Amino acid sequence: MKLNGNYVREFENPVYVASSAACVGKKESEGPLKDIMDVCFSDDGIGCSSWEDAEAKLIKTAVDLCLNKAEMNNKDIGAVFSGDLLNQCTASTYGLRESDIPFLGLFGACSTMALALSLASVFVDSGYTENTLCVTSSHFCSAEKQFRYPLEYGAQRSPASQRTVTGSGAFILSSAQKSPVVISRILFGKIVDLGISDTSNMGAAMAPAAAQSIADFLDDTGTTPQDYDLILTGDLGKIGSDILIDHLMSRYHKDISSVHNDCGLLIYDLEKQDVHSGGSGCGCSATVMASLIMEKMMCGELKRILFAGTGALMSPLLSLQGETIPAICHIAEFNYRR
Amino acid sequence: MKLNGNYVREFENPVYVASSAACVGKKESEGPLKDIMDVCFSDDGIGCSSWEDAEAKLIKTAVDLCLNKAEMNNKDIGAVFSGDLLNQCTASTYGLRESDIPFLGLFGACSTMALALSLASVFVDSGYTENTLCVTSSHFCSAEKQFRYPLEYGAQRSPASQRTVTGSGAFILSSAQKSPVVISRILFGKIVDLGISDTSNMGAAMAPAAAQSIADFLDDTGTTPQDYDLILTGDLGKIGSDILIDHLMSRYHKDISSVHNDCGLLIYDLEKQDVHSGGSGCGCSATVMASLIMEKMMCGELKRILFAGTGALMSPLLSLQGETIPAICHIAEFNYRR
Repeated sequence: MKLNGNYVREFENPVYVASSAACVGKKESEGPLKDIMDVCFSDDGIGCSSWEDAEAKLIKTAVDLCLNKAEMNNKDIGAVFSGDLLNQCTASTYGLRESDIPFLGLFGACSTMALALSLASVFVDSGYTENTLCVTSSHFCSAEKQFRYPLEYGAQRSPASQRTVTGSGAFILSSAQKSPVVISRILFGKIVDLGISDTSNMGAAMAPAAAQSIADFLDDTGTTPQDYDLILTGDLGKIGSDILIDHLMSRYHKDISSVHNDCGLLIYDLEKQDVHSGGSGCGCSATVMASLIMEKMMCGELKRILFAGTGALMSPLLSLQGETIPAICHIAEFNYRR
Repeated sequence: MKLNGNYVREFENPVYVASSAACVGKKESEGPLKDIMDVCFSDDGIGCSSWEDAEAKLIKTAVDLCLNKAEMNNKDIGAVFSGDLLNQCTASTYGLRESDIPFLGLFGACSTMALALSLASVFVDSGYTENTLCVTSSHFCSAEKQFRYPLEYGAQRSPASQRTVTGSGAFILSSAQKSPVVISRILFGKIVDLGISDTSNMGAAMAPAAAQSIADFLDDTGTTPQDYDLILTGDLGKIGSDILIDHLMSRYHKDISSVHNDCGLLIYDLEKQDVHSGGSGCGCSATVMASLIMEKMMCGELKRILFAGTGALMSPLLSLQGETIPAICHIAEFNYRR
């Protein structure tokens, strides 16, 4: 692979998106993307006795769907990169416990799918694996319980807050199984913390990290926002997206407003669904990318996009200790080639 | 890189261990490795106001030491792989918050250093980065609080339990800065869960994963235990090590007893230090490898070792829900070349 500037790497071998799959919960099944999700569960319990078990089942469902769509089985996969929001990444470890695939656990909060896709691209490009699986998840109920309050408390949510998406998205990247969509360039982000400590406003904490990584990517590749059909962040929500656009403009003199969108704004109808600032969670960008975005790319409606996965590396414990929230943003560039 | 058998990859370019560093807390400073650790803190608080902050300072200290020993600064490092035992990997994220290095967060419980070293090797071999940093940590007090009971409760620890090491170890892997020690082959492990649910007996949960990965490694490479100067697990402790040796013998007909040791047995004096089954935690194998083992390899006293990092992917919440403990083992082969 080739170095572009300081941080971006460009792959010399094609890294194909062999397949992608997404399954979501009830609220997401009532949103604008309901018709293109592979599976919509009508109940967030998903037939399980705990929210944690339900989230593990989301992971398993997305993986099975993704393998089926690629006409592969577990033995065809050289490695799986996986992570989620739960302590000790239990949705991933328990969801993949019986998979018999070499397992690489990641932690990147909501940026985990971008981290997984970028690492998997390195594996496929370098020949480490022929086929690599990426899967991440989140679940509204397990996340509220862990990061805020159990749902039974009936706590009122802040207007700046984002709703954790119940869902899981999976991708198979391959050097052998061709498709019209490839990952061409990637950038791993640095931790950025501008001092936001409001745990109900993750968008504000993540926006500066997104701005830094997007500016680094554009500088390193000598491209402008207008060279892309879409610069998709995941997941800044409404407040974070507005901050990102302002911050990029004032600090780096880059205007991405005409080509920008955010996975947290696409998965829900913000007017009608009472989700405050939009969606978030490892399952948000994973399911939006694996459904809507891949559908539009596979047919060439979108030809070149930047997927900038953002994560608030927030700990409830350290927030109680008065700490601010570090954030990160990893970027993968997808291209349509036919 | 080349495929060996089903799982092992062999690097075609040298992946040098440019430097390594380790810092430890009070109990470890009273153990058999006290004289070869780079820094021994006399108090586990390390001048900080919380155990979590102290653990982040361990990470920062190990990174600074490792950079100094390699005569590098942050700008020379293309990426850092890091993880720890804390929820949301906060020792890593807060410890590296100001590093300005592209950050890749990992979760592998006590196997995290083996996971980090293996991933960093792929980066260095493939030319993704020239120099890659790996750092992991654990802290007895932050881990007891999170996984078991706050120390103030004075809970009695089970005889089968292992003591979480207070410490952090760091490595810089490089394609450019030569040294006598290289990482030649790696294997990423699969999740193994044979049904152990006793959270005070991690060794028993991890031993089958270690047995599986070691057997896979030996099979794939066509080697026998006697081809290695040392097969070092980290961290099975006394009970887990005994189970590993029995399990490998009865299931795979491989006897590693003459060349086996365990990081959890090396870091403490089990007779005198009242640590029950030995040491554990992301900081255990990291500090033992970065001090004792690298010292013996750099001078050629050890010429070929397998480092089999084991992790119990245990969640206190899922254990309370009655779940068993999934485990994993990643392997990196180190060779002395002069």
